Amino acid sequence: MSRETSSAEIAERLLAGDRAALSRLISWAENAHPDFPAALATLWPRVGRAWRIGITGPPGSGKSTLTSELVALLRRGAATVGVLAIDPSSPFSGGALLGDRIRMDERTADEGVYIRSMASRESHGGLARAASDACDVMDAFGIDFILLETVGVGQAEYDVIGAADTVVVVLCPGAGDGIQAMKAGLLEVADILVVNKADLEGADLLELDLRDALRLRGIRAAPGDPAWEVPVVSASARDGVGLDVLLAGLEGHRRALEAGSNAERRRRKRALQVRRVVGERLDEELWGPGGFTERAESSLRKSATPYDVAEEILVHLRGVAGPRPAEDASPTERSPS
Amino acid sequence: MSRETSSAEIAERLLAGDRAALSRLISWAENAHPDFPAALATLWPRVGRAWRIGITGPPGSGKSTLTSELVALLRRGAATVGVLAIDPSSPFSGGALLGDRIRMDERTADEGVYIRSMASRESHGGLARAASDACDVMDAFGIDFILLETVGVGQAEYDVIGAADTVVVVLCPGAGDGIQAMKAGLLEVADILVVNKADLEGADLLELDLRDALRLRGIRAAPGDPAWEVPVVSASARDGVGLDVLLAGLEGHRRALEAGSNAERRRRKRALQVRRVVGERLDEELWGPGGFTERAESSLRKSATPYDVAEEILVHLRGVAGPRPAEDASPTERSPS
Repeated sequence: MSRETSSAEIAERLLAGDRAALSRLISWAENAHPDFPAALATLWPRVGRAWRIGITGPPGSGKSTLTSELVALLRRGAATVGVLAIDPSSPFSGGALLGDRIRMDERTADEGVYIRSMASRESHGGLARAASDACDVMDAFGIDFILLETVGVGQAEYDVIGAADTVVVVLCPGAGDGIQAMKAGLLEVADILVVNKADLEGADLLELDLRDALRLRGIRAAPGDPAWEVPVVSASARDGVGLDVLLAGLEGHRRALEAGSNAERRRRKRALQVRRVVGERLDEELWGPGGFTERAESSLRKSATPYDVAEEILVHLRGVAGPRPAEDASPTERSPS
Repeated sequence: MSRETSSAEIAERLLAGDRAALSRLISWAENAHPDFPAALATLWPRVGRAWRIGITGPPGSGKSTLTSELVALLRRGAATVGVLAIDPSSPFSGGALLGDRIRMDERTADEGVYIRSMASRESHGGLARAASDACDVMDAFGIDFILLETVGVGQAEYDVIGAADTVVVVLCPGAGDGIQAMKAGLLEVADILVVNKADLEGADLLELDLRDALRLRGIRAAPGDPAWEVPVVSASARDGVGLDVLLAGLEGHRRALEAGSNAERRRRKRALQVRRVVGERLDEELWGPGGFTERAESSLRKSATPYDVAEEILVHLRGVAGPRPAEDASPTERSPS
């Protein structure tokens, strides 16, 4: 069987509703399988209908419980739901995640729910690329809502969460987390803020702090978007409190975007994905067999710094390539960005 | 003042023992400052004398306490010590790190100790590149031992720890961490294993498990290296127990490497650094102003998948560059690797 047949076949099976094909294609994305691009091309006309919701926040803020309850709520509305749990430091993220995942697994008896976790060790360093690919695959499968949940809030998670249409940042009272969230830039990425564990002491204060911070920052609006005022939702996910308000917020944000720059925003996210793929491919070409590894080691033997050697290789690449890659672009492509 | 003067000046100040210059150059590394490569070139003849020790393991295993006690022990031997604490998910790594850092700060009154933390959000995604640069700078400053301590054990931490000459993996009894460590590949990177909190129940069992696993795997030896049998050190860092054995293990590993392939191993690590620098630079050139962003967005508008667009750009680059980058290398450079 030729490669093309095989990738087209598995893509067709996915489109026919085969969950095993869905799982397999997500693994292909994770492992950077050489046939994944061909499979994705077959799926592509069906990609773009799902709404992608990123759920992030510091460990212990109750993201997993919130995600689990949100799945239940969305299912009540008969929507199909996919969950992609991102854990760049797996398998050492601690027992909490595992416990929550087991609870979540109760929902997997439900055919309308698909749950998958993704750890960076399996994704060859391309976690954000793989997560975006996995969303595309779930989207083509016909899933209505994709919840991208991260375990922590490091750089890897920020990159992953960039694939979401709506980003929910979950905080909870305690240890100056409001101020830390601002420092960490969480307010900058939030479309909706949730103050979870709202029954705990300090929740009211955290909410006030966040509202103040949002007011100081002013209303954010992407070019062409209707103004979107980031709501602060008081919730207690464990007791099901505040989830209806969160859901209303999610719907509001979606409507605002769909009336605005949704297509443009998604294209920017896809351009980022192109950038990741180009980066991975160039890295392979330059450093795989027949690449520059030996030349680099030989130059390093002559006491050159890594930067000197890098420059030497870049000069060589540019020399072979003539002018710098972009400089041969036509004038329309060179307009300032 | 010209750029060259300025970077040479600050490098000279560092070489004269100025701690402010050391801090500034590490910040330059972190921020990918354009003058950093020139400064590093000035420092380069003095780089290579420090021994770099990576300390990693799951959260809660007591890495920070161990690091802190190791600093004290090394100081007793009159060595100077640098600590680089790597926290890719800062500032949400939790209170434990902060608490330990404050304890550690007691040592910073000591002129022979330099402590610095590095978070990925400040290093423009190039955490491993920045950490390696920071080690080089500390090395040139004349620091004898550099401890690279990671908060967790995700992919980002693995990349960072690759800069170390000796990798210490710290585990502690509880929750099947021994088995998890094997799954996470921690045994593969360990030159020395520490079973910390050895007074806790399960420590003996964990030690036995680890010894069995090491026996099954056989003795690892890099080409040209004398065989190195990974020791399993039973410790209780909080009470200062086992640290002398750890220190003996560190010295033993260093001696074994210095009699073996140390220079070759370091060259391989530096070649990896070249790869990171080339990757960062190409990414900037391809996607900065005048790059391929608009071309990508325009192709995406025509319903191409991100992989199709990436391929289009790569074909364009190869077209401009003639044959693939490596294929014009001289025959000696093309020998199989």
